[in-house]
Amino acid sequence: RASEYAVSIDDFLSLPVQEEKNIAFLDLKAINQAHASGLERAFDRVLYSGWYIQGQQVKAFESEFASYCGTPFCIGVANGLDALTLTLRAWKEMGRLKEGDKILVPANTYIASILAITENRLTPVLVEPDPATFNISPSEILKSLDSKTKAILPVHLYGQMADMPTIMEIARKHDLLVLEDAAQAHGAIIGGKKAGSWGDAAGFSFYPGKNLGALGDAGAVTTHDEELALTIRALGNYGSHKKYENLYQGVNSRLDEMQAALLRVKLPHLDRDIEKRQAVARQYMEGINHPEILLPAWKEDGSHVFHLFVLRCQRRDELQAYLAEKGIQTLIHYPVPPHKQKAYGAWKGIRLPLTEQIHKEVLSLPMGPTIPDDEVFEVIKGFNEFS
Amino acid sequence: RASEYAVSIDDFLSLPVQEEKNIAFLDLKAINQAHASGLERAFDRVLYSGWYIQGQQVKAFESEFASYCGTPFCIGVANGLDALTLTLRAWKEMGRLKEGDKILVPANTYIASILAITENRLTPVLVEPDPATFNISPSEILKSLDSKTKAILPVHLYGQMADMPTIMEIARKHDLLVLEDAAQAHGAIIGGKKAGSWGDAAGFSFYPGKNLGALGDAGAVTTHDEELALTIRALGNYGSHKKYENLYQGVNSRLDEMQAALLRVKLPHLDRDIEKRQAVARQYMEGINHPEILLPAWKEDGSHVFHLFVLRCQRRDELQAYLAEKGIQTLIHYPVPPHKQKAYGAWKGIRLPLTEQIHKEVLSLPMGPTIPDDEVFEVIKGFNEFS
Ligand SMILES: Cc1ncc(COP(=O)(O)O)c(/C=N/[C@@H]2[C@@H](O)[C@@H](OP(=O)(O)OP(=O)(O)OC[C@H]3O[C@@H](n4cc(C)c(=O)[nH]c4=O)C[C@@H]3O)O[C@H](C)[C@H]2O)c1O
Ligand SMILES: Cc1ncc(COP(=O)(O)O)c(/C=N/[C@@H]2[C@@H](O)[C@@H](OP(=O)(O)OP(=O)(O)OC[C@H]3O[C@@H](n4cc(C)c(=O)[nH]c4=O)C[C@@H]3O)O[C@H](C)[C@H]2O)c1O
Repeated sequence: RASEYAVSIDDFLSLPVQEEKNIAFLDLKAINQAHASGLERAFDRVLYSGWYIQGQQVKAFESEFASYCGTPFCIGVANGLDALTLTLRAWKEMGRLKEGDKILVPANTYIASILAITENRLTPVLVEPDPATFNISPSEILKSLDSKTKAILPVHLYGQMADMPTIMEIARKHDLLVLEDAAQAHGAIIGGKKAGSWGDAAGFSFYPGKNLGALGDAGAVTTHDEELALTIRALGNYGSHKKYENLYQGVNSRLDEMQAALLRVKLPHLDRDIEKRQAVARQYMEGINHPEILLPAWKEDGSHVFHLFVLRCQRRDELQAYLAEKGIQTLIHYPVPPHKQKAYGAWKGIRLPLTEQIHKEVLSLPMGPTIPDDEVFEVIKGFNEFS
Repeated sequence: RASEYAVSIDDFLSLPVQEEKNIAFLDLKAINQAHASGLERAFDRVLYSGWYIQGQQVKAFESEFASYCGTPFCIGVANGLDALTLTLRAWKEMGRLKEGDKILVPANTYIASILAITENRLTPVLVEPDPATFNISPSEILKSLDSKTKAILPVHLYGQMADMPTIMEIARKHDLLVLEDAAQAHGAIIGGKKAGSWGDAAGFSFYPGKNLGALGDAGAVTTHDEELALTIRALGNYGSHKKYENLYQGVNSRLDEMQAALLRVKLPHLDRDIEKRQAVARQYMEGINHPEILLPAWKEDGSHVFHLFVLRCQRRDELQAYLAEKGIQTLIHYPVPPHKQKAYGAWKGIRLPLTEQIHKEVLSLPMGPTIPDDEVFEVIKGFNEFS
């Protein structure tokens, strides 16, 4: 029905010569279209297999992702928040944590890191970040420790790994469990060891916008601990290891066969995508030059996979509005810190000056593995012209 | 590469003339292949849209499923267990339930109905079934009521609606909330009112094997209560109504865009599928004739949608083995009642004679909308020849 879409010659001549150019914060359409034929084949494979839950695709993805991260075990779950929640819950079932135990967590994180703790009736202790990296500060960890502290939940925020060598040293010395929140940091590496392989366990998210994103909600836990792996798998399957036998009072949190098959198409391209993100970051670092803009700290050693490129500006809201007018979309990760959310009303009185300041100043730039050079240049120009 | 699959003439001649015929309990491959081209188009539509979470497909499915059930609201969630868990959790947030409140639930159900209650630290009170329908017995409900009882969670087991008119009358009289577990009963109807529209809310599962099954985990809540609907939606979205604002300490439990799009392809065929299931049930009812086999009670009024066709036999295990030898696959729903599971060790002492007897005797026959007549006849023959 071409006629429905036909444009008369008059209409055509009245169209603007050059449409306003919009630069998306994240072009997920382009990212997934690049894999379209592989994704379509994967969909068909699963559709025609007749098996949609906990089958061969999940098994294969788990083993491929475990080997990517350098851990013996990976357990697919429904999403990134569940990956964290179920790990803590499994440690409770295993007698390694109990209600009321304190868990150190960065104050400056996506709220999910903290929801996982309170969901388990454990007590989050909010720790201020290292001002250079925005990640949890080891010296602040040491100040926050007490005898009720049983675990650390470091977050690799924006794709940059927390200082895992120091954190693991502290944890071993004080006999603390470590759960990495690696939701933003698939593929990040320090000293040859990937995010997800440092702690006693790690939670990953495959939310569509993540560096490795599914076409829906998805997540996983990686670990070296087989007992933990088995416990998480049962807890996410109604508490059942074996059909119709329930060991635990569990939940339903499984990685779909379909999403696993789609992730298997994308995983082999993750390293190349990360390189492209790092290349864009390099362009931003070299190109953006403005007295009021604070660029992120970055060692080019693979420890930052640039899920987000986040800079700081005291006139952040003005800057964002200015860029929006130029058609450049930015986001704020995050506008309101967890301790200021209604959900955590009891924390209203807590003062976390650094975290609060960061939330007022951060701005996330367009970033992704498909962003074309001319868009990167336009973003740089946009920033440099801000006055 | 045909050569890889080529069979030499010798091999070919040595193949058995007639392969053993296997009759699957549920042929999900055939069920979904019947919709293959629609499902593939739906997949593409979502893939190319670039939007995979809480978008137009979820919205459209929610409204189509609400209208199918006859309720103003439907909220997509990650699975059927979450549908129940989040509803009870929302009632707690709304001040309508509190920890320790008693919830009446059939003793004879899939364990998920009970997990939803204990997950919320509410107290399940296990109620014996009506021996004719296996569903929760209104007279037993009356016997189990006390001042701490705040809700009833009737399960429409096997696809047959519980006695909702009587249950709703009891509930209104005693000021109890009613949460229907409609995971097995999409489309079942009593007096023109569908499953899911009777109670204050209802939980549905779209587990692949359900009468309306996704290609992965999926679920929904239906309700007449807008406040409840909004609360559930926020609770399943990290506790957030609005991006980056968290009202509640929530979880991640969302219906995927992808699964919603796939369900939209299948929903228009649900009524025809149910009719086919009822036709198969009719064939079983008329054909199976064996002194040791107790057929289910069934009024042909639409109140039973035959998710499962379940009969009873005191020599159930022998019967199942006998059928297996004939290539007829059956399942047991369920071999172990919830109060006998390790997960509920504290209930070891509880005696529920009728529930326990049912678990020893039930057997679920091959059933589905694509099962061919010759298979139905073979199943009937298999039963009638059992000695
Ligand atoms: C540290 C940490 N721990 C645990 C978690 C929990 O993991 P989860 O349970 O898997 O979410 C997170 C999650 N983290 C993220 C969180 O960072 C935040 O991410 P965000 O960048 O604000 O996400 P968004 O705005 O929805 O998407 C980013 C961009 O992509 C576009 N988009 C999005 C979607 C979904 C789409 O389909 N198509 C699009 O074009 C819109 C935006 O421009 O919000 C999400 C819901 C969480 O999953 C985390 O960061
Ligand atoms: C009353 C009530 N309330 C809440 C719930 C919770 O809902 P949920 O969280 O969505 O599971 C249930 C779930 N109920 C079901 C429960 O009844 C049980 O169902 P089941 O018949 O034992 O299921 P199954 O054996 O896995 O599948 C049935 C047949 O289909 C085949 N199959 C299965 C799959 C998944 C496949 O991909 N391909 C196949 O060919 C194998 C089998 O022959 O176990 C499931 C895991 C639950 O979702 C319930 O019954």
